[in-house]
Amino acid sequence: MNLKDNQPDIAPSPDVIIEGGTLLSMVDGESPVPNARILIKGDRILDIQSSDAPGEPAPGAEIIQAAKGLIMPGLVNAHTHTAMTLFRGLADDLPLKQWLFEKIFPSEATHINEENVYWGVLLGCLEMIASGTTTFSDGYFLQDHTIRAVQESGLRALVAQGVIDFPAPGLADPKENLNRGREFLMKWRGFSDRIYPGLFCHSPITCSDNTLQGAMEISEEFSSPLQIHLSETADEVSEMMNRTGERPASHLHRLGLLTRNLIAVHAIHLSPEEMDLLCHGGVRVVHTPESNMKLASGICRAWEMIGRGLHLGLGTDGCASNNNLDLFQEMDCAAKLQKVYNMDPTHMDAETILKMATSEGAKVLGLDREIGTIEKGKKADLIVVDMNSPHLVPLYNPVSTMVYSASGADVKDVVVNGKILMRDRAFQTLDPTEIMERVREIAQGIKT
Amino acid sequence: MNLKDNQPDIAPSPDVIIEGGTLLSMVDGESPVPNARILIKGDRILDIQSSDAPGEPAPGAEIIQAAKGLIMPGLVNAHTHTAMTLFRGLADDLPLKQWLFEKIFPSEATHINEENVYWGVLLGCLEMIASGTTTFSDGYFLQDHTIRAVQESGLRALVAQGVIDFPAPGLADPKENLNRGREFLMKWRGFSDRIYPGLFCHSPITCSDNTLQGAMEISEEFSSPLQIHLSETADEVSEMMNRTGERPASHLHRLGLLTRNLIAVHAIHLSPEEMDLLCHGGVRVVHTPESNMKLASGICRAWEMIGRGLHLGLGTDGCASNNNLDLFQEMDCAAKLQKVYNMDPTHMDAETILKMATSEGAKVLGLDREIGTIEKGKKADLIVVDMNSPHLVPLYNPVSTMVYSASGADVKDVVVNGKILMRDRAFQTLDPTEIMERVREIAQGIKT
Repeated sequence: MNLKDNQPDIAPSPDVIIEGGTLLSMVDGESPVPNARILIKGDRILDIQSSDAPGEPAPGAEIIQAAKGLIMPGLVNAHTHTAMTLFRGLADDLPLKQWLFEKIFPSEATHINEENVYWGVLLGCLEMIASGTTTFSDGYFLQDHTIRAVQESGLRALVAQGVIDFPAPGLADPKENLNRGREFLMKWRGFSDRIYPGLFCHSPITCSDNTLQGAMEISEEFSSPLQIHLSETADEVSEMMNRTGERPASHLHRLGLLTRNLIAVHAIHLSPEEMDLLCHGGVRVVHTPESNMKLASGICRAWEMIGRGLHLGLGTDGCASNNNLDLFQEMDCAAKLQKVYNMDPTHMDAETILKMATSEGAKVLGLDREIGTIEKGKKADLIVVDMNSPHLVPLYNPVSTMVYSASGADVKDVVVNGKILMRDRAFQTLDPTEIMERVREIAQGIKT
Repeated sequence: MNLKDNQPDIAPSPDVIIEGGTLLSMVDGESPVPNARILIKGDRILDIQSSDAPGEPAPGAEIIQAAKGLIMPGLVNAHTHTAMTLFRGLADDLPLKQWLFEKIFPSEATHINEENVYWGVLLGCLEMIASGTTTFSDGYFLQDHTIRAVQESGLRALVAQGVIDFPAPGLADPKENLNRGREFLMKWRGFSDRIYPGLFCHSPITCSDNTLQGAMEISEEFSSPLQIHLSETADEVSEMMNRTGERPASHLHRLGLLTRNLIAVHAIHLSPEEMDLLCHGGVRVVHTPESNMKLASGICRAWEMIGRGLHLGLGTDGCASNNNLDLFQEMDCAAKLQKVYNMDPTHMDAETILKMATSEGAKVLGLDREIGTIEKGKKADLIVVDMNSPHLVPLYNPVSTMVYSASGADVKDVVVNGKILMRDRAFQTLDPTEIMERVREIAQGIKT
């Protein structure tokens, strides 16, 4: 996108200026630029300059001082179930089926209602802002209320309404799942330039073939990607094999779902043939290593997939299986896991993983023309990381320092769509005290 | 230890009081205690009371407010090379031999001198204080200068002088390694009640049999544990096999080293017979998963070892292969790695891993009579974690929240040996600005 076409002869005055700091644009081939100055006008990046040169006077512009900081694109959490912050730490270290059927599903059935989704998502938004995530992809139920919370937070999100052939929160009659999905897309399309409605099929074994195909048809009709949990566990593969004689990805292929419009989450238990099918179809993939490790689901062959040309994003998954939304920690763990899994320390290098959490994540969500890198004309979604902490010193390589040394708590300022959401670690759009208090009250009910 | 024997009739007035907050003592079988009050006198815990009851007047006592916080034992980092903070991020994602022989060893040969060790360790101490580690075990060279820095920091540490049959910093003539080791122990024994000198054999393949046996003899003479890197890589095993026809642990067994006085670090590539030898000898083990993952060394069968009765501590290893000293992140990763490695989500549960980082870590270092739990009469080494952050809400289970949700940045206050080292995240003993500036200057020289 070239902003110049729209520029009048006199350069418009910026609304926000990020001054000083090293710019890590995440544009392919661009090295870190020291002493950068980022000018933001409205929701977009107006210009990128050097702080060494004197700036034009900018009366009324808000100045974010980034000296000794690193300016980088906001992170993209490509898969989570945000409202599940409500269940953070409720049930850990349990066998998968006990965790799901005795703890999570019953808690969801009893406690997931409109108000609780709203407050749970607000808590997740706080946490994501505080740890430098500016865009996330959410799959859950009662998503009108997720959107309500995202709207207030100022974050950018793909909010996908859950589609499943079982009763779920807000979906007493599963036969209505596609109608509800269509209504959801109708209701929210065009509502906001930072909230993108979508659909999310729970999995190949919890959705019928009709549901899967219908959800893809609707998604294509609305030009929205369809998300699905795919081959998360060995049990899923067995069950699909028993039911159809096919493995899950092969089954989706036969149904015509393995296309560029599908976002496959987890993608762990794939045969070589299924990996080929994903590659040929151009399916987008989300890697969620911490959740997969914690639930002992298995290890996604993420490095191999990247080598085969697939686009991979990085996701935390929900807080019931992680148990936080810190993408910095997820990057660290993801890189290290692939290295030891493949017994090669060169695998999943820092640059690759940082791209997964920024530019590649944006591609997976279909938002790479707008976000994922810091470039003139793109949406102003960026963060400033405070580098003046012992664990970030010395600084030989900003990229590997972000991946292997930093954590979400190092993020100082967060800007989304040109708006400051966190400044010097103070939230600007949400009231953390109220939100944490409300969630604590909700949790009292869940615990007992 | 029973403090009562030393108590006069009138209870002594505490020097420090930690008021409010939930106590997680890490004593076996003790549940979290809400609204605790910890009284500290000198270097020890004088009493543990309830904040619900009115406290005695304590004129002059420093009060640490821990409301909404968690009071727990300071963490024990059972293996690191602290001065290697200087190389944090210098060389990542490289093949192991290239990393070691082209980057780390040459950098050490050129840049590891007395002053740089001192500043590198000070930086590491800052980082450990800031992330809630109160005791660490260090193995490196020029350790007089590590001790100088630890002394200033106020931290507790087992500081082990490196023993190796190659030239190393401060050890131009490797034949002098044992003499230097003995001199080191002579010089520092009894110097401080929170600094314990020791020896650290680099590995079975970089130390001769004579050196290994001599180091153990000296260690036993000084009642100090001997540390060694053991079976970190498959190459180490091959090399030892080629040289002796024995695997590394079997070799150490033949030399009489597999005893309760040995701390074996890494312990990855062990045959079933070697695992038996470690168990029968009662060897103490340090698990360092993040470094092992990052270098693609392999995965320690930590859960199996614990099941077989071995005592395991947790270590970050040095910053050149991690790249931070945050034991909270190490706990999270360690738990998740064992689960997916063994494909069982019940393995390495949160309580087990938190013990590894506290009470079991203390046992591994031989310090469990003094530290590792919060008990009356023990050394006052404790931390307060601020729980009023979005990613720590709600709080169903303090133990799993510490392991799976928290990071080092959540630590608010740090007390070691009764002295406050960090208060509301402000360092009390060290000057972070000066230390970071000096390390940045040193790093300029290393980089070029």
